[in-house]
Amino acid sequence: MKSTLEILQKHFDSSSIKTEKEDLENYGTDWTRYFNPNPVAIFFPKHIDEIQKIVLLANEHHFVLVPSGGRTGLSGAAVAKKEEVIVSFDKLNQIISYNELDQSITVEAGAITEEIQNFAKEKELLYPIDFASKGSSQIGGNIATNAGGVNVLKYGMTREWVLGMKVVTAKGEILEFNQGLIKNATGYDFRHLFIGSEGTLGFIVEATLKLTRAPKEKQVILFGIPNMEKVVKVMNTFRAELDLLAFEFFSDATVDYVMEHTHVGLPLAKRYPFYTIMEFESNNGKNTELVFSIYQKLYQKGWILDDIFGGDEQTIKHLWGYRENISSSISSFIPYKNDLSVRISNIHSFLSETEDIVKNNYPDFIVLWYGHIADGNLHLNILKPNKLSVKEFEEKCKKVNLLIFEIVKKYKGSISAEHGVGLLKKDYLEYSRSKEEIEYMKLIKNIFDPNNIMNRGKVFDT
Amino acid sequence: MKSTLEILQKHFDSSSIKTEKEDLENYGTDWTRYFNPNPVAIFFPKHIDEIQKIVLLANEHHFVLVPSGGRTGLSGAAVAKKEEVIVSFDKLNQIISYNELDQSITVEAGAITEEIQNFAKEKELLYPIDFASKGSSQIGGNIATNAGGVNVLKYGMTREWVLGMKVVTAKGEILEFNQGLIKNATGYDFRHLFIGSEGTLGFIVEATLKLTRAPKEKQVILFGIPNMEKVVKVMNTFRAELDLLAFEFFSDATVDYVMEHTHVGLPLAKRYPFYTIMEFESNNGKNTELVFSIYQKLYQKGWILDDIFGGDEQTIKHLWGYRENISSSISSFIPYKNDLSVRISNIHSFLSETEDIVKNNYPDFIVLWYGHIADGNLHLNILKPNKLSVKEFEEKCKKVNLLIFEIVKKYKGSISAEHGVGLLKKDYLEYSRSKEEIEYMKLIKNIFDPNNIMNRGKVFDT
Repeated sequence: MKSTLEILQKHFDSSSIKTEKEDLENYGTDWTRYFNPNPVAIFFPKHIDEIQKIVLLANEHHFVLVPSGGRTGLSGAAVAKKEEVIVSFDKLNQIISYNELDQSITVEAGAITEEIQNFAKEKELLYPIDFASKGSSQIGGNIATNAGGVNVLKYGMTREWVLGMKVVTAKGEILEFNQGLIKNATGYDFRHLFIGSEGTLGFIVEATLKLTRAPKEKQVILFGIPNMEKVVKVMNTFRAELDLLAFEFFSDATVDYVMEHTHVGLPLAKRYPFYTIMEFESNNGKNTELVFSIYQKLYQKGWILDDIFGGDEQTIKHLWGYRENISSSISSFIPYKNDLSVRISNIHSFLSETEDIVKNNYPDFIVLWYGHIADGNLHLNILKPNKLSVKEFEEKCKKVNLLIFEIVKKYKGSISAEHGVGLLKKDYLEYSRSKEEIEYMKLIKNIFDPNNIMNRGKVFDT
Repeated sequence: MKSTLEILQKHFDSSSIKTEKEDLENYGTDWTRYFNPNPVAIFFPKHIDEIQKIVLLANEHHFVLVPSGGRTGLSGAAVAKKEEVIVSFDKLNQIISYNELDQSITVEAGAITEEIQNFAKEKELLYPIDFASKGSSQIGGNIATNAGGVNVLKYGMTREWVLGMKVVTAKGEILEFNQGLIKNATGYDFRHLFIGSEGTLGFIVEATLKLTRAPKEKQVILFGIPNMEKVVKVMNTFRAELDLLAFEFFSDATVDYVMEHTHVGLPLAKRYPFYTIMEFESNNGKNTELVFSIYQKLYQKGWILDDIFGGDEQTIKHLWGYRENISSSISSFIPYKNDLSVRISNIHSFLSETEDIVKNNYPDFIVLWYGHIADGNLHLNILKPNKLSVKEFEEKCKKVNLLIFEIVKKYKGSISAEHGVGLLKKDYLEYSRSKEEIEYMKLIKNIFDPNNIMNRGKVFDT
């Protein structure tokens, strides 16, 4: 019987296949560092027909395919550790067409998120989904994980920007969903089944994306705030009066790492338990006035303790840095990341209960909070104490997870707000989804992928 | 063997069941008038458990259930013509809870759309999905058909406002989807499968809806425009500069019926081929200035031929009347309605090709166009010539359909933009969805509804 590699070599040009150890390790993993990559090969299709072909071969010869984009994921959904064949979209990365009247763009799945943003900018439009890994993440991966980021408050998730989609199902059919339409009430909308499916149903090979008006004269204001309850109240007071572009938060402890790593001073004259950064459209100064008049009231109430305003590009960049540089500033401390969400109204109690649990069980752990408060999305990062080995630390963190996820469950929250399930969270899926729901997921997976050749063992076991 | 009615009478209080002829006819149909209602009975559950119970009974005794809301649908999805049992949500219509911090509201599926809008208003917030039938349509039906309306341009469809959902599946499980979260990347999102499923998978019994900031100082401006191509260009010029709340269009012929029916004069001094009504937030006059400066340019270009501005409530109401009263003004002429969508860039050629086809084949037909131009959503209405009987007219219209749907298919449009498929469009589904997609719909239906007890024969045949 032929080996998987022999099958690939027989059917595809050798220039489309990589098997060097270095490549296997590089393409075999994502930004999670917990798994040991072990793919058979990496396949680089140059045309959709080649994807259809390898899907049919996988069904015939029973090997497993792992769709691979920019590999910036944090859940292991793109990890290949079980002799899978990785299908990389690096050579299917073109912007196919732009339609001015539709304000839409059609791209291959391998197109880089930032290149799509820049293309929109050239057309004086906006592709608003924005996050730290945009420089290398691919749109196919963004769609497969329904990527969020810092602008969800105003613009929603990736889901809301996908007007159409071309997929190759796990059975090898090439299907087009929704043909770029804004309204289409003709039965089940399969776009929304594939969005967030983490490559378990088929390959997303093309997408038609909606673009929109770019905001004019962005301004930001950074606040120091006494506690999490006030953080939420401050946000709601502002968004009742104007449309905000972003409202992010971070805890005081994060600031030390950003100061150390990026050589900046304190964001404000004094330290405060929490900081928020709010972005809005100046709108010829009208909104700026409005923001300051609201600020005055909240300052007198003691909900806001101090502020710094950013009106020019340089200050805006500086202030955003305190939020955007957290992740890179703490990466050397091997943070154990959790990407959680609860209803906004539960954030305050959820956060304090979680902190207590961690402090009581692991007093030497350093706990950092930051994230997208308007989405109820909290990034919990626990830093490794020096005295612990990475292995010991991970063991303890796995125990912490269970305690934290119990609280998530209590508040009917999500164990993965925007990173996805992949391999990292699948054992915990029942903390956020019912047994019945998971059973339905498996039944739906089986419809599209009866031989289980697509990203097997990701999200759930079959 | 017991009859279905006997089974109902055995298990439920008689006050929950109606069988009077008048009720059967009333509850057996929707705003489509093409079908003869013939239900066995109407069941009015007062609690979710009763829905679960009747679902289990339907599976055991093989009778079919038709979910029934406000019955304002235009596709026959709520029609019961085959001795089904209608399950009405008239007694499950409460607003269960409101959460100020989350800006969300949890309601029973029978809650009236307009009552939800009014409740939001009391809280100085907005539930933005708005359409003509809001006074009697129920939120469960809105979700089951992913209702659109006049504010989609700014706020999207119903889909975007559903944070959580409680359903009773066709197998009788009570499932909660997404628990009111904004972000939740934990596998397939079943909300989006049930949204737009037209009652074929189970009962939507509760929903948690997102509310948002209500716009301040709405203003409208009505334009006279030479042709459809310019209509699209005018819209895009404005929305490149500011966020619009609505941008609707109607053809000149519609005006006669509105003038006749609502006793108003011409919207503008002279008549023009097309009219648009644009709504936006004044924003302390800033946007008003902007709109007028853009208007000047487009007027000089000849894209806009005349305008009338509405700044006060009364004028706004008057101007909106020309668009909103079309449907009621033509209803006595027994219009044959089609709810079509194409990409905005195809509207111009689609509309002219469609007009030619109808004119060439049926020169005596009066063709009216109006709709949501920003969504590519065109409501095509054909009025019955007096000399034709209703039956003859319908026969001819069915023939016209095929010609029109061929053009829809050519432009990869939708045969139902927002009304749904139900009974009215199911024979034409293949004009907008591929055979493979329809096959997948049937397979998914079979997962949730193996005995086909939910709204059998709607959307597709099984």
